[in-house]
Amino acid sequence: MRPGIPLLRSIPVFGQLRPGALAELDSASEVVAADRGEELFRQGSLPLVLFFLLDGLIALSSSVSDGSTAVVDVIRPMSDLVLASVIGALPYLQSAHAVTRSRLLAIQAGPLRTLTEREPELAAPLLHAMSREVRGLVRQVRDLKLRTTTQRLGAYLLTLVDDPAAPTAELRLPFEKGLLAARLGCRQENLSRAFATLRELGVETRGARVTLSDIPRLTAYSVPDYLNDPELTKDGRAAATRRVREAAG
Amino acid sequence: MRPGIPLLRSIPVFGQLRPGALAELDSASEVVAADRGEELFRQGSLPLVLFFLLDGLIALSSSVSDGSTAVVDVIRPMSDLVLASVIGALPYLQSAHAVTRSRLLAIQAGPLRTLTEREPELAAPLLHAMSREVRGLVRQVRDLKLRTTTQRLGAYLLTLVDDPAAPTAELRLPFEKGLLAARLGCRQENLSRAFATLRELGVETRGARVTLSDIPRLTAYSVPDYLNDPELTKDGRAAATRRVREAAG
Repeated sequence: MRPGIPLLRSIPVFGQLRPGALAELDSASEVVAADRGEELFRQGSLPLVLFFLLDGLIALSSSVSDGSTAVVDVIRPMSDLVLASVIGALPYLQSAHAVTRSRLLAIQAGPLRTLTEREPELAAPLLHAMSREVRGLVRQVRDLKLRTTTQRLGAYLLTLVDDPAAPTAELRLPFEKGLLAARLGCRQENLSRAFATLRELGVETRGARVTLSDIPRLTAYSVPDYLNDPELTKDGRAAATRRVREAAG
Repeated sequence: MRPGIPLLRSIPVFGQLRPGALAELDSASEVVAADRGEELFRQGSLPLVLFFLLDGLIALSSSVSDGSTAVVDVIRPMSDLVLASVIGALPYLQSAHAVTRSRLLAIQAGPLRTLTEREPELAAPLLHAMSREVRGLVRQVRDLKLRTTTQRLGAYLLTLVDDPAAPTAELRLPFEKGLLAARLGCRQENLSRAFATLRELGVETRGARVTLSDIPRLTAYSVPDYLNDPELTKDGRAAATRRVREAAG
């Protein structure tokens, strides 16, 4: 199914495109569904389409030659997968799997690259989107180098809280603990130990349900990025996601 | 001092620019020197210029709000510092310091952004350069999540070897061990322990001098990225650096 102009226009990188270019993009695009566990692309293969995740969760994992595999990120809507490889026409460094049933926009890579070279109204927002991708990765590198596994878990839990200024919160882990451990870059037994340590800071878990009963203490302990990084407000992301959902009906 | 057209043209992202645009770029650019230890920019400030490192070494470090600081990367010529923040017009996530006396090209951010929006021959190569930045960071995230400190050190030493197919090599660490530990994301005592462990794999150190007497074993142990990543040949980088040095005289 074609996405249609309103859905395309609601995606921030395409918001400034003139109608003719949007129509071209529409004719090279499709809305597709991926079942839980389905592979969208594989590390080493050349990108054929650029995906935007509309609904669901996608895990990006990357292996080294001895077969060991890291989960680099778990992507939430509205994000692209993986702009850098598609625009660079370079083999994927990561494989993508649907963690939950997902809905995606798939844009053919060839027409997208042609359009990018021709339309400054596309190249500029793509540069900005890629800037944000770089900055997200820089934050993750910093996170991995500076924080202990327990702090990383604490900082991650805090990103799931709608209002980090509230004293307490109830939340659900968006995916199972094996994937969470891989995303945080630790083994599952270390994740269990980290959850046990966080109990002293008011973090209670029952299955996927997590209660934070002392957010100020957890914040002081985990030093999450948003404390000194105004770019990381939840508002911006939430508003962008809402816009896309409304457009998609 | 203005860089001059030949130097600008030798930088891959500017190679396709028409002469008029190159002249504009030249009039907004300067070749500058930084003494050892000098700060080039500070985390949180807005980028005023885009630097390209022509000679020397620059450390990029990033702090969280409790003051602890990670060295995200140590940049070698020919690389930009940090394209994503300059193009995005976003506050730097990292501070930059000269590790050794360095020579840089400094291009004013405003004229560069204007030119980028106007010239598709600039936007396209900048997108590709940023793609490579993303991919380097994805590799580093994978490295941090999958490898032990000792494997990371082994893989790092192998990147300093000119011919990884040779059985042995002599090399010099490009910077002191405190910075190396921070770059690898470990404490200095863990780095010492990692060097001690690598002794069994034929790695001998005396000060900054390192002898690798069994590269195949070290390679099998460290699983460096270039084993399954054709993008990571040293040839490409070496050729680019040579071109720039020749043009700079």
